[in-house]
Amino acid sequence: MSSMTGENIKLSIFGESHGAAIGVVIDGLPAGEPLDFEEIGAQMSRRAPGRDKTSTQRKESDTPEILSGVLDGHTTGSPLCAVIKNSDAHSSDYDDLSRFPRPGHADFTANTRYGGFSDFRGGGHFSGRLTAPMVFAGAVCRGLLTRRGVNIGAHIYSIGGVNDTPFDAANVGAETLRELSHMTFPVIGSESEAKMREVIEAARMGSDSVGGIVECAAQGLPCGLGDPIFGGVENRLASVLFGIPAVKGLEFGEGFGAARLHGSENNDAFCMSDGKVKTATNHSGGILGGITSGMPVVFRLAFKPTPSIFLPQQTVDLKEGCNAALQIKGRHDPCVVIRAVPVVEALTAFCMLDLMLGGCKGDA
Amino acid sequence: MSSMTGENIKLSIFGESHGAAIGVVIDGLPAGEPLDFEEIGAQMSRRAPGRDKTSTQRKESDTPEILSGVLDGHTTGSPLCAVIKNSDAHSSDYDDLSRFPRPGHADFTANTRYGGFSDFRGGGHFSGRLTAPMVFAGAVCRGLLTRRGVNIGAHIYSIGGVNDTPFDAANVGAETLRELSHMTFPVIGSESEAKMREVIEAARMGSDSVGGIVECAAQGLPCGLGDPIFGGVENRLASVLFGIPAVKGLEFGEGFGAARLHGSENNDAFCMSDGKVKTATNHSGGILGGITSGMPVVFRLAFKPTPSIFLPQQTVDLKEGCNAALQIKGRHDPCVVIRAVPVVEALTAFCMLDLMLGGCKGDA
Amino acid sequence: MSSMTGENIKLSIFGESHGAAIGVVIDGLPAGEPLDFEEIGAQMSRRAPGRDKTSTQRKESDTPEILSGVLDGHTTGSPLCAVIKNSDAHSSDYDDLSRFPRPGHADFTANTRYGGFSDFRGGGHFSGRLTAPMVFAGAVCRGLLTRRGVNIGAHIYSIGGVNDTPFDAANVGAETLRELSHMTFPVIGSESEAKMREVIEAARMGSDSVGGIVECAAQGLPCGLGDPIFGGVENRLASVLFGIPAVKGLEFGEGFGAARLHGSENNDAFCMSDGKVKTATNHSGGILGGITSGMPVVFRLAFKPTPSIFLPQQTVDLKEGCNAALQIKGRHDPCVVIRAVPVVEALTAFCMLDLMLGGCKGDA
Amino acid sequence: MSSMTGENIKLSIFGESHGAAIGVVIDGLPAGEPLDFEEIGAQMSRRAPGRDKTSTQRKESDTPEILSGVLDGHTTGSPLCAVIKNSDAHSSDYDDLSRFPRPGHADFTANTRYGGFSDFRGGGHFSGRLTAPMVFAGAVCRGLLTRRGVNIGAHIYSIGGVNDTPFDAANVGAETLRELSHMTFPVIGSESEAKMREVIEAARMGSDSVGGIVECAAQGLPCGLGDPIFGGVENRLASVLFGIPAVKGLEFGEGFGAARLHGSENNDAFCMSDGKVKTATNHSGGILGGITSGMPVVFRLAFKPTPSIFLPQQTVDLKEGCNAALQIKGRHDPCVVIRAVPVVEALTAFCMLDLMLGGCKGDA
Repeated sequence: MSSMTGENIKLSIFGESHGAAIGVVIDGLPAGEPLDFEEIGAQMSRRAPGRDKTSTQRKESDTPEILSGVLDGHTTGSPLCAVIKNSDAHSSDYDDLSRFPRPGHADFTANTRYGGFSDFRGGGHFSGRLTAPMVFAGAVCRGLLTRRGVNIGAHIYSIGGVNDTPFDAANVGAETLRELSHMTFPVIGSESEAKMREVIEAARMGSDSVGGIVECAAQGLPCGLGDPIFGGVENRLASVLFGIPAVKGLEFGEGFGAARLHGSENNDAFCMSDGKVKTATNHSGGILGGITSGMPVVFRLAFKPTPSIFLPQQTVDLKEGCNAALQIKGRHDPCVVIRAVPVVEALTAFCMLDLMLGGCKGDA
Repeated sequence: MSSMTGENIKLSIFGESHGAAIGVVIDGLPAGEPLDFEEIGAQMSRRAPGRDKTSTQRKESDTPEILSGVLDGHTTGSPLCAVIKNSDAHSSDYDDLSRFPRPGHADFTANTRYGGFSDFRGGGHFSGRLTAPMVFAGAVCRGLLTRRGVNIGAHIYSIGGVNDTPFDAANVGAETLRELSHMTFPVIGSESEAKMREVIEAARMGSDSVGGIVECAAQGLPCGLGDPIFGGVENRLASVLFGIPAVKGLEFGEGFGAARLHGSENNDAFCMSDGKVKTATNHSGGILGGITSGMPVVFRLAFKPTPSIFLPQQTVDLKEGCNAALQIKGRHDPCVVIRAVPVVEALTAFCMLDLMLGGCKGDA
Repeated sequence: MSSMTGENIKLSIFGESHGAAIGVVIDGLPAGEPLDFEEIGAQMSRRAPGRDKTSTQRKESDTPEILSGVLDGHTTGSPLCAVIKNSDAHSSDYDDLSRFPRPGHADFTANTRYGGFSDFRGGGHFSGRLTAPMVFAGAVCRGLLTRRGVNIGAHIYSIGGVNDTPFDAANVGAETLRELSHMTFPVIGSESEAKMREVIEAARMGSDSVGGIVECAAQGLPCGLGDPIFGGVENRLASVLFGIPAVKGLEFGEGFGAARLHGSENNDAFCMSDGKVKTATNHSGGILGGITSGMPVVFRLAFKPTPSIFLPQQTVDLKEGCNAALQIKGRHDPCVVIRAVPVVEALTAFCMLDLMLGGCKGDA
Repeated sequence: MSSMTGENIKLSIFGESHGAAIGVVIDGLPAGEPLDFEEIGAQMSRRAPGRDKTSTQRKESDTPEILSGVLDGHTTGSPLCAVIKNSDAHSSDYDDLSRFPRPGHADFTANTRYGGFSDFRGGGHFSGRLTAPMVFAGAVCRGLLTRRGVNIGAHIYSIGGVNDTPFDAANVGAETLRELSHMTFPVIGSESEAKMREVIEAARMGSDSVGGIVECAAQGLPCGLGDPIFGGVENRLASVLFGIPAVKGLEFGEGFGAARLHGSENNDAFCMSDGKVKTATNHSGGILGGITSGMPVVFRLAFKPTPSIFLPQQTVDLKEGCNAALQIKGRHDPCVVIRAVPVVEALTAFCMLDLMLGGCKGDA
């Protein structure tokens, strides 16, 4: 419902792009967990804007201020609230959005949904800026997961048709994930970054934008997490991950590719390996019947190209009720996919911790 | 959580493939809604097994018995429970599944999750048979939607690489959806069925199975349904639709295709049409910022090939802890995609009604 | 929401008094738990009607039929659905209720809430008959609690002003609770039953009814269950227990009596006892800050007198919109408190198991 | 769960008594609602400490800073977050609480629940200070209710056995509720305040504390709000109101008194009044079958005496595992009931708005 999610731990995201602050409440964290502030800062900085030409030129320090739930560097078990002040907001760039909605944005639908009262400045509550508290929450959750042997990492699978080397789904290693989760342009293949930057720069020079795909993996999860039917790992990840702005598709394991395969090609044969049950391949993406198999969980998220482009576009004048031309101002990413990687990792960490915390239900 | 879902109306699915019965509780339906039993029966029969060579030979009448929530053919507002008896179960076909888990099935993960106590016969609670109560619930919800001007229909987008004509996303009409929702092999193109049947028959003759994609649309929804971030229409549909067995991917509008596009190609220009705001194209699949735009909601679901194939496969012997060969018995669909179409429509109807019932929140 | 409740396990109650059947889905039970059918039957029979002059003369065998979630006498971990057929319904006794609502009943409010479409026969979904599936669910949950060292029992604290001996809150023993939970007229004092029966018989002879109070205790709970603020043990018990028809009050420990006390009288001094922290008294009812203290949880529930009395009453004619006289027919309990005791125990068992199953959250 | 609650709107309370700040997120408020900051300030100030001898001497300005969800004085429909800084915390008064738990407080149970990591200073997350964000949220909700014709007010029903004039439950008027909701010592009878202040002063002079009862009413609600069984108005109010520290009992209408009555005394006769269905009396407290009857909703909450007293008490030394004497320091209310009145009104307003916003479910 709305900006809250989670089952065993709950996330509540609040804030608007040009309001006083954005932030998050995490309710239900176990007590006594140390926070690694350096690591949290590192993740915040991966997502932060203004780094180079691939991102918006808005400058925000994005320093989260923790208001509750932490004492002497450890969680207290009470709700953890963290707040990030907005500072570099240029609201005047957005004056016309309530009248001339931007194509591909939530301006029009939010205006209808909230009867003209939504905060349209910079996209308001629908802005990509709301991913900052997600990254904070994910960094907190990731700390708990690391201590429980679970590693999460993602890479840019493709941008505008240029592909990176995909994960080897049956053999994603902890070390690879740790490395990726600290890169600012996370790719596996050695030439991927250069080629992708070319595509982005071409879009930027054309006053345009370009989409892409992020591939994410979680390694070290025990077999047996998740519930049947609507409580499956796919359901839960999906219900959270579609909360990232611009995501339009999600596939697990072989995903849409499996629709072209035969059962004999797509089934993962079971085999014993060092006394444990594994699968020789991992077309299932580590999930069978909604429940983790103990193999790495692997999935891909499709991001549409940023709708904010500087080419002239056609829209409507909501005041006059007629067609109108639009020329977007403001500061926008020509490609959100790079900055989206830490966001994907963050919400995946939240989901996986939520699953782990509920995992002991049957054991009471 | 588990086998319950929904926000304004709730669905609770219960039963096991070879247990006494399967069924559903729908809690929160408005009172005074007439049930169209003929239409409900028609939808049940689209999903029912044993129809022809594309499906399992298990025979079930699949007649739902309504235990509560309906009086004189109208909903009473109290929880509606319907039960479907299991009759044609051949449990002896499944004796070895608890020891030799089938590749691609939930046998192994369920065995781990439930400590060896899950009902493994016929897949138990993870069986495709559990989609029967989903179709019942969806048929009930669809009745309410039809009276509110919302139409839902789906077609087989592709099977094993053979494609049907896709929806014209900006112009999906009520009539098309109504027709599709009453076809047993729902396709748009005139030659699609024959070609697809060839692919399925080839798989069946090869003791194999084949996957596919279902495309679904909902037309007639008002603009402004859905909530931001985790309460978006994509999030809600995803959290429910991944509850259909064998679904491994979901994309809205342009979906994964958008990852290859520029913003100038993917943005849908707004325009006035008969005094209403529309978009000229519908790459967004009718959803912007998680909220319906008033254009048709369009999405695609990837189904993996049925894991139950009759070729020899490799698995493990959980009793002895060693590798083992497996030869599956039982009755299985060479392609689940055809029977999955009414299931996709059903859960979409549930989701859309859930959204509609919550849509008036801001209006109190 | 509505007829569903629970956090770590979920309960979904369905059915109407004169419909085909009533029943329950329990979702989230741990797998591998043996069901004690004899004990379940014993609890069902404590609640069943038609036993003697203190209860309605409606005869129902109240035999639950388990449709799912149980295999070879053990839970499978999938949703457990049980159905109880209605057989001895005299619907003709209730023909006028939709026009002449009974004072003190839900006839009028349900008629408004459901726009005249609710099943008014015998009170429909609001009937005390819906407590039968609650008792079934509670008996299942109690089995799991017993194996975890938790015992639950209740007694008739008072009827029409006649009081039983109250619990010694700091020393409620397992044996006492086990005995009470198998009595058909559960009282502690040796003369309570005779005196209470007098009060009930007097009410019955006067065509009237009488209210009472049930006191319940749970013993053996560990310290540390429950969450702060809205997730406290009091909050959870209250949100479930007010689901029992006719309950109008709930107090924990000293309850309303504490409002007249000083802190020095009401505080429970901590003390060491056999190396464990206890309290010398138990005015708090075993709950501090919403969290169990390890002392017995003790609370009282006030039941109003059955609104169905055979004296002439004043009501309205909803058809004509004028005042009207009413003479109730049908079969009704002169005092629901006796049959309510197993219902209170049952929902308490559900709540306590729900708490226990979530108790390990912080330990993952 | 934990510090979140609500169905159609959600409340998330965070903070610790001596942490950086306390606050609240309200998610799901309708857009376009004007906030009355003067009224909000008035309610905050009714609850604020340090006013006179009946309350703690801690001084806090309790000025809420709104971080999101409000633009130009109106709600935007996005989550509203408000933060209240802590300033006058004397943490050194509390150094020993983690070792010597105070009788009647959550120190011991929180210490167990959170493995010694909870913030014990000033009671941490369990402190009465957390009621400040509740009052803020309630004041926001009350504004919406007033515009919808619903009025809420409460008075001190009794303190230490001294009773105020009770509500005339069948005739609680809007004007009375408005007056009460702006009084700092809200009583109905002209002599109640003086007598109650005597009792409190006597307790204070004796280094002791005293409990009491708050009676609350909501007037102007339509008939038909609430859902059956677990979704009743009593269930929802109870699940929220037990979140107020020190509440140990709750009764609706005649409540525990009804347990001593006959049906003929307790039933409320229906009658036509100005063309509308009313009841001549209101023993039911405005709720029948969990659903509002259109009569005023009336209930009472029992508050135990503040456990913080300055008399010597016995406790345990958790470090040494032995009994110990305790002398409490710090600043505490000799009677929390006065400052609790606006808190009761606030959470009632939240609940009633939550109900109203869901009330249109069946109408879509």
